[in-house]
Amino acid sequence: MKNVKRIGFVAVLLAVVVGGVWYASHQAQAGAPTVADQAVAAPAALVTKDISLAQAQAAVAAAVAKAEATKTKMDIAVIDAGGNLKAFARMDGAWLGSIDIAMKKAKTARYFDMPSGTIGTLSQPGGPLFNIEHSNNGLISFPGGLPLKAADGTVIGAIGVSGSTVENDHTVAAAGAEVVK
Amino acid sequence: MKNVKRIGFVAVLLAVVVGGVWYASHQAQAGAPTVADQAVAAPAALVTKDISLAQAQAAVAAAVAKAEATKTKMDIAVIDAGGNLKAFARMDGAWLGSIDIAMKKAKTARYFDMPSGTIGTLSQPGGPLFNIEHSNNGLISFPGGLPLKAADGTVIGAIGVSGSTVENDHTVAAAGAEVVK
Amino acid sequence: MKNVKRIGFVAVLLAVVVGGVWYASHQAQAGAPTVADQAVAAPAALVTKDISLAQAQAAVAAAVAKAEATKTKMDIAVIDAGGNLKAFARMDGAWLGSIDIAMKKAKTARYFDMPSGTIGTLSQPGGPLFNIEHSNNGLISFPGGLPLKAADGTVIGAIGVSGSTVENDHTVAAAGAEVVK
Amino acid sequence: MKNVKRIGFVAVLLAVVVGGVWYASHQAQAGAPTVADQAVAAPAALVTKDISLAQAQAAVAAAVAKAEATKTKMDIAVIDAGGNLKAFARMDGAWLGSIDIAMKKAKTARYFDMPSGTIGTLSQPGGPLFNIEHSNNGLISFPGGLPLKAADGTVIGAIGVSGSTVENDHTVAAAGAEVVK
Repeated sequence: MKNVKRIGFVAVLLAVVVGGVWYASHQAQAGAPTVADQAVAAPAALVTKDISLAQAQAAVAAAVAKAEATKTKMDIAVIDAGGNLKAFARMDGAWLGSIDIAMKKAKTARYFDMPSGTIGTLSQPGGPLFNIEHSNNGLISFPGGLPLKAADGTVIGAIGVSGSTVENDHTVAAAGAEVVK
Repeated sequence: MKNVKRIGFVAVLLAVVVGGVWYASHQAQAGAPTVADQAVAAPAALVTKDISLAQAQAAVAAAVAKAEATKTKMDIAVIDAGGNLKAFARMDGAWLGSIDIAMKKAKTARYFDMPSGTIGTLSQPGGPLFNIEHSNNGLISFPGGLPLKAADGTVIGAIGVSGSTVENDHTVAAAGAEVVK
Repeated sequence: MKNVKRIGFVAVLLAVVVGGVWYASHQAQAGAPTVADQAVAAPAALVTKDISLAQAQAAVAAAVAKAEATKTKMDIAVIDAGGNLKAFARMDGAWLGSIDIAMKKAKTARYFDMPSGTIGTLSQPGGPLFNIEHSNNGLISFPGGLPLKAADGTVIGAIGVSGSTVENDHTVAAAGAEVVK
Repeated sequence: MKNVKRIGFVAVLLAVVVGGVWYASHQAQAGAPTVADQAVAAPAALVTKDISLAQAQAAVAAAVAKAEATKTKMDIAVIDAGGNLKAFARMDGAWLGSIDIAMKKAKTARYFDMPSGTIGTLSQPGGPLFNIEHSNNGLISFPGGLPLKAADGTVIGAIGVSGSTVENDHTVAAAGAEVVK
């Protein structure tokens, strides 16, 4: 009895699946010449990750703490996986010109998923990316911008820091990046 | 001897000062009508106030708390007395288009030291400030932007909130403004 | 009766206040590291200084006088502590292209609190700030921009001069900066 | 004898003139179709007038005096006949947003050689110039901008004032315009 039931269930299942495929492929044939074949198996959205506000604020707080420890005054920007601003802080007395630079460092790091300084080594006169800074409404290609990654390596955003030497900017950015996982 | 020397020194000092003033005022009379007369008595700097990062972050935190309490998702920007970004937070799931609007609401409030919505009531067709939004690289003249004031009434910055209805935006901005003194 | 009521009121008040503080600090501990703890004790505004119009006009007048003395024709811009234009003069026959350059030199000097030419020495190919000029809607990194400081060293604005050689531009800017204290 | 000489002179003159015209017209025919005919009589440059720095600073000073007399705080911009900034002053405490508006009012007045408010009456919904504010990188079409004219009526620049009601802005602009001739 049990086996018969099981066979009946499989038969129904088969009928449903075959019927569905037949219907879907027919629909596809009836329509205009599109990407109909893919529509047979409905294309799936990407499953991805993005930085949360809690993470972004934790990164800013860690960067501010590092800046205070190194007696520097920093502008700190965190952007999300889409390159859009998520959190920002300008320490008291930090350079006004570093607001834009911190944001552009973060964007540069996320736009190419590498440290902003790496772009700088490739964009010197004679280098392969000479004058890439003219793109994207202005890049900043010296150190201080770092991708932010989830534990599995997915890039979920970037941090940009400006306000002191590029070495200090990088150190503070690294302190912010370290708390994001 | 000592007194004589002192008197001689004072006389020379007087001669230099009087001569300098005479020269400066003469220069002023001889030239085009300038501000030279004011320059004789060196003009003083203004003593003023500006928002601190601690204040800006407290305003953002209070605004986020209010947004959570009202089940809205907001972009929140705080600028300083000079109109420069001081702190920013975008809540998870908040509109991307509200990043710029929150910033422009804050700027509009600081640029004219009044709520952004007040500008909006004056800039309607037929109103005295019709099309003022074309200035300053774009203003946002609906509610959600408020000046931030020190206890003595000095405007030390502004907050701009965007992400829901303008009523909700205003309510959240007001919650942020309330903690700044 | 009256006293009892008063005591009862005070007790309720105390309960509300203590409960509020407990709740706030607990929220801070429970959530991500935020600025909630600071918000308990209301943070104070910064007390600072800004350039006055009298100072700005005195700087422009001194710069014009120096330009006349050196037979040059200059554009002279003075901005305030927040980077916003305070005073401007273009001498008769001075270059039209120097309107924007004078303003950008002043901004560059204030944005990083150093002479504009110092940025230029750091932004050469191979230098640490290569291509920084792409930030902030365009910087000008050759001499002619100087920070303006109050007697106590507070940066209260900046002057930018353009219209001749960079040496002359710097000399005229320095003459303007000298009268601001 | 005298007459013969005269006839001979006239004959030579005629030959030179006819020859010259023949040569010139031939050149014109030989070359590409250009403005060569006009070149025979070299075209003259326009003789025009432009505002001097002394005039511009006098207008600013008169406007500041009027603003002080009416207890308002104004941003005042003066541009030259070419529409380029000549002089500017922002009074202490005047709105930051009025820097750009004062400049745009002056430009609007010079761009069309009429008061900025006149443009505003024509740019309302349904009016002939609806949305003209979108041109020229942004116009401001409410009162406060006035052309500046030499004694003979030549427009030599414009003044733009912003910082209070449009009525006050206009009054202060008129006070500045009055001293320019």
